[in-house]
Amino acid sequence: MLSYFLLLFAIAIIVYFKDVSPIGSAVGFSVIGYVAVDVLIPQVGDSFIKIGLFGKDMSKPGRPVIPETIGSVSATVYLFIMFFSIPFMFYKYLVITSGGGNRDLVSQESTEEQLFPHSKLSEFLSALLCLESTILLGAADDLFDLRWRHKFFLPAIAAIPLLVVYYVDFSVTHVLIPKFVQELIGTSKTSIDLGAFYYCYMASVAIFCPNSINILAGVNGLEVGQSIVLGLIFMINDVLYLTMGVNGHARESHLFSLLLIVPFLGVSLALFKWNRWPAKVFVGDTYCYFAGMVFAVVGILGHFSKTTLLFFLPQIFNFIYSAPQIFGLVPCPRHRLPKFNESDWLMYTSRADLIKEKPKPVMQPILRLLHKLRLIDLNIDPKTNTILDCSNMTLINLMIVWFGPMREDKLCYSILALQFIIGISAICLRHLIGSLLFGNDNLWNIV
Amino acid sequence: MLSYFLLLFAIAIIVYFKDVSPIGSAVGFSVIGYVAVDVLIPQVGDSFIKIGLFGKDMSKPGRPVIPETIGSVSATVYLFIMFFSIPFMFYKYLVITSGGGNRDLVSQESTEEQLFPHSKLSEFLSALLCLESTILLGAADDLFDLRWRHKFFLPAIAAIPLLVVYYVDFSVTHVLIPKFVQELIGTSKTSIDLGAFYYCYMASVAIFCPNSINILAGVNGLEVGQSIVLGLIFMINDVLYLTMGVNGHARESHLFSLLLIVPFLGVSLALFKWNRWPAKVFVGDTYCYFAGMVFAVVGILGHFSKTTLLFFLPQIFNFIYSAPQIFGLVPCPRHRLPKFNESDWLMYTSRADLIKEKPKPVMQPILRLLHKLRLIDLNIDPKTNTILDCSNMTLINLMIVWFGPMREDKLCYSILALQFIIGISAICLRHLIGSLLFGNDNLWNIV
Repeated sequence: MLSYFLLLFAIAIIVYFKDVSPIGSAVGFSVIGYVAVDVLIPQVGDSFIKIGLFGKDMSKPGRPVIPETIGSVSATVYLFIMFFSIPFMFYKYLVITSGGGNRDLVSQESTEEQLFPHSKLSEFLSALLCLESTILLGAADDLFDLRWRHKFFLPAIAAIPLLVVYYVDFSVTHVLIPKFVQELIGTSKTSIDLGAFYYCYMASVAIFCPNSINILAGVNGLEVGQSIVLGLIFMINDVLYLTMGVNGHARESHLFSLLLIVPFLGVSLALFKWNRWPAKVFVGDTYCYFAGMVFAVVGILGHFSKTTLLFFLPQIFNFIYSAPQIFGLVPCPRHRLPKFNESDWLMYTSRADLIKEKPKPVMQPILRLLHKLRLIDLNIDPKTNTILDCSNMTLINLMIVWFGPMREDKLCYSILALQFIIGISAICLRHLIGSLLFGNDNLWNIV
Repeated sequence: MLSYFLLLFAIAIIVYFKDVSPIGSAVGFSVIGYVAVDVLIPQVGDSFIKIGLFGKDMSKPGRPVIPETIGSVSATVYLFIMFFSIPFMFYKYLVITSGGGNRDLVSQESTEEQLFPHSKLSEFLSALLCLESTILLGAADDLFDLRWRHKFFLPAIAAIPLLVVYYVDFSVTHVLIPKFVQELIGTSKTSIDLGAFYYCYMASVAIFCPNSINILAGVNGLEVGQSIVLGLIFMINDVLYLTMGVNGHARESHLFSLLLIVPFLGVSLALFKWNRWPAKVFVGDTYCYFAGMVFAVVGILGHFSKTTLLFFLPQIFNFIYSAPQIFGLVPCPRHRLPKFNESDWLMYTSRADLIKEKPKPVMQPILRLLHKLRLIDLNIDPKTNTILDCSNMTLINLMIVWFGPMREDKLCYSILALQFIIGISAICLRHLIGSLLFGNDNLWNIV
């Protein structure tokens, strides 16, 4: 019943706002996406379990079996609502050109070519191609359980359509030089052309964003939750640009970003409803890759990939903090998710045994230093002063080190709150540092 | 070793022809596609079997288990070689515009906008989006074994990006009126605008092509084989247009068709190598949908969907011929593939028992008529003159009715030969009838 009401509401928004702004239709399609995902998830769960896509929830009594890879539903629904939203994004151009569907003269085409923003359309289509490739490769990963070293590079392969269209269509490969560097090396050039290296940089962003979301996982709701928080931060940043009367390229970039992020929030919120504590479904790698790629695409095509990385600070921190265990400097158990205690329902830090297998000698003083800084929890034998074990080096465990054992949902929400605060700070920081480094900030001074 | 040689050859073609014609690079990427699929298939087979994607070959002694859905490898490889071929398709435009990658001035963009064919690019991207959606939905079908009535409409959903971009980008919805109809209804209009109905028509083409390939199946190599023959017929038709010095829209349509078909032939030939008798892999629904959609896309975007249907005559015949069984007028056993006889390795007609379950009364005289016309094989009780059973109504069984029992490979190749002859006749017919019906034919007289 509520679904029908929401759908009617969504259609009303789309129809009402179609001449006013494409943002209106994005909101409408976002609501449709929410309803569709919310209706589909309970219907497909059993089919997923039947073909072997299920997992055990380790942090519940009895370790219940629930469907895995359900995030692919969100991702697929997202794609199809984006397909349907294409005409509404270009509605004002369609109206100008004698109202799409009524153009029957070939000779008109030459004038239309200038009116209709075909380059915008191909930009948008390449973004969708990239996201669809991500879903396809993510599904392959979920199905075939690819090896870590293979799956790490999957997003770069999925990003190929994006990079190729970027090459064919824009080929802007210069980056601004910070003012102090300009003075340092005594150049008057304000930008430097990175050429092919810029494509490597973009591919790296496309690899980093999806994988970093995939790594910060293990607690009910965290994968979707962090994606929603990221979406909100991107949205706030976009709205900031659009309402401050910025014009030109920056405005178009952030409008584009908003049109992609708003429907993403719709399908993600519905997934969160089912994946939050106590989880009824798991999201799977497909969703993590897809979510990360949405932000990578927005950052790359919107030319604000550096800001994008700034918004990923918690994920970057988690990655660097995890690095000693990932690269084998500190012993790494197979699972690092926090330990569930059945008697009090609280999550405790999971720990790596440092007696059976010693950490590399170089890490010994570093671990002790981190311990002093309260960035890790160590058990040290008071007699021999040897380290017995350490809390696993993930942001999730660190939260427990800082705030003590807590229930899984509280743990998830604390991380999301921290992430949101950092994100808002990053927005402020970005415009402050932008002004300092480049002598101007494109929010207030347009180049 | 041969693979490396072929790869070098392909790269040489791509590099050599990059300034001359995009067709050269299409041939090069086609060779790369062949090599990639040929190398990948034996490597992934076991993984497919492990996750339950396998089938029993009913027409071999012992019914060996072989991997299923392997056609998805061809489809995915096709997509990625198409991504890489984008820059080569637009190479001449990239060179004109100061050599893509070196454009660092925003002010240049306004002049580029007119030079670079963005509408061609978005056309191409929408074709790839449609094909990728087809693969995604086809994979869902292969994994979840969707119900027949659901999967029948899947291609229409996958075609949405194509139709939407068609709406936004072209919106040509008129069709030519045959000359005799013009005279009949006394109009001087040469075309009629179908409006929204044209989109229904395009959706129907998108539903028909994939499903018709999926239905004409059951013999080793037939799904890929018929797709290859279709590809060859399309290619011959395209080459005919391009070499006869046709210009304007018709030339562009057939160049576009060729650029999509040639790489398709590469990935399909490699699949055929593994799927032909005795099959080492099965292709799965994904490939059938994908192959059919390639032709639907080419027909729709190239504005020759009526010619496309003409090339699908064997499939159309098979569909109409099957209809009485599909729609329940004649009893339909679960499988209709011909019966394998282990002692002589020949394939015999499979038969529907008409005693246990009677055909609808209206079909009785029709079946007898078809029997007289040698379009079906009936066993009739000579005493009571009742029909005991009939050969199943598929083109495959009909071939056996006509030419007697034969080995599976010979059966497949006879059907392909028949299809090829019909296709070549269709090309002749199309240009003959085109001239008669419309007063001109776009091969010789350009509108």
